[in-house]
Amino acid sequence: MSNVPEGDTMPATSDARRTSRGLETRSRIVDSAAKLFYVRGVNATTLDDIRLASGTSKSQLYNHFEDKRALIHAVIDVQSKFVLAREEQRLRGVKTLTGLRRWRDALVQANALQDGSYGCALGAMSIELSDNDEQSRQALNASFDAWQRMLVETLTRLRVLGVLAEDADPRRLGTGLLAALQGGYVLAQNAHSSEPMAVALDMALDHIAFFARS
Amino acid sequence: MSNVPEGDTMPATSDARRTSRGLETRSRIVDSAAKLFYVRGVNATTLDDIRLASGTSKSQLYNHFEDKRALIHAVIDVQSKFVLAREEQRLRGVKTLTGLRRWRDALVQANALQDGSYGCALGAMSIELSDNDEQSRQALNASFDAWQRMLVETLTRLRVLGVLAEDADPRRLGTGLLAALQGGYVLAQNAHSSEPMAVALDMALDHIAFFARS
Repeated sequence: MSNVPEGDTMPATSDARRTSRGLETRSRIVDSAAKLFYVRGVNATTLDDIRLASGTSKSQLYNHFEDKRALIHAVIDVQSKFVLAREEQRLRGVKTLTGLRRWRDALVQANALQDGSYGCALGAMSIELSDNDEQSRQALNASFDAWQRMLVETLTRLRVLGVLAEDADPRRLGTGLLAALQGGYVLAQNAHSSEPMAVALDMALDHIAFFARS
Repeated sequence: MSNVPEGDTMPATSDARRTSRGLETRSRIVDSAAKLFYVRGVNATTLDDIRLASGTSKSQLYNHFEDKRALIHAVIDVQSKFVLAREEQRLRGVKTLTGLRRWRDALVQANALQDGSYGCALGAMSIELSDNDEQSRQALNASFDAWQRMLVETLTRLRVLGVLAEDADPRRLGTGLLAALQGGYVLAQNAHSSEPMAVALDMALDHIAFFARS
């Protein structure tokens, strides 16, 4: 019997949470919830929807999550880890402006594959939750901070490498770049086309390129 | 007895809709719904919440709106008119980059007054509705198009006046500016601070200023 991993915030009050089958059920519930929250929205998704999609019973669901709020926090955790791991993987090797444009291309392509739909998993949850659940807001804020930090570190690296001039301000440019991406997601979702996201990111990258050392 | 105005899309099947008291009730319902949708979100708000906030009975509500969807469409209409009238009023006289910065200041100040909360009324509704109700998406898309057009017209005016150089592309810059604003709203709502919105808009405006004719 495997133990609940250290640092897991769920109290282990039941055996189901400790067994590997229990952990598998929990992760099936979280995955189904994450998909439904992403496609339909958090508040438009009921616990019954999640039970149906994950093929779990009411008692299984409540065995793992006290209420919908607890499940929402688990989904924020999973989606944050997913987005941040993807961004870390794409950004850590960027050493040129071309590399930064490749990061942009990957985001726009993924968005184009779903015709601009659904927006950013973190941004969309933030809009629904930030003003109504302080714990969700803080968790998402930590994720956005980490995301912005990766962009700032990337731009700082470009400055250290001499790709960008000394007067480039990585913190401001990183914030502006993340905002261009988030605004791009909003406009793309509404237009059902990734084009406005492409234009928004290009404008931000063109601005950053103004600081290129010639 | 006043008639339902021409161009009103509601079928007038009941006297209540025709009387001025009926119109007053309808507008009270729409105003309450608009406020609740903005502060709590569309899907987190029930028709009962709206009845309570507007002080109307179930029969009054259903007399004016067949279902929640019909009420959502009425709110989109009212919020779109509000946002577009405000933007039109602020943008039409802009003839300098300083004027454009004043437009930015007004948006950031309004956002700061509510500590970054709630986001953009249109952007937030779009994220909840675009993938789940095509009629809402199209209505919001028309509003975003009109908003973007105002920004493009403003930037075109600045180019005609010689404030911006010939190689400034008003369409691309207008899209990027609207995305910076929308992304700024998302980050501000999550941070409960208008600062990221200010930084995002400043980066977009700095980029536009690169095209200033010296």
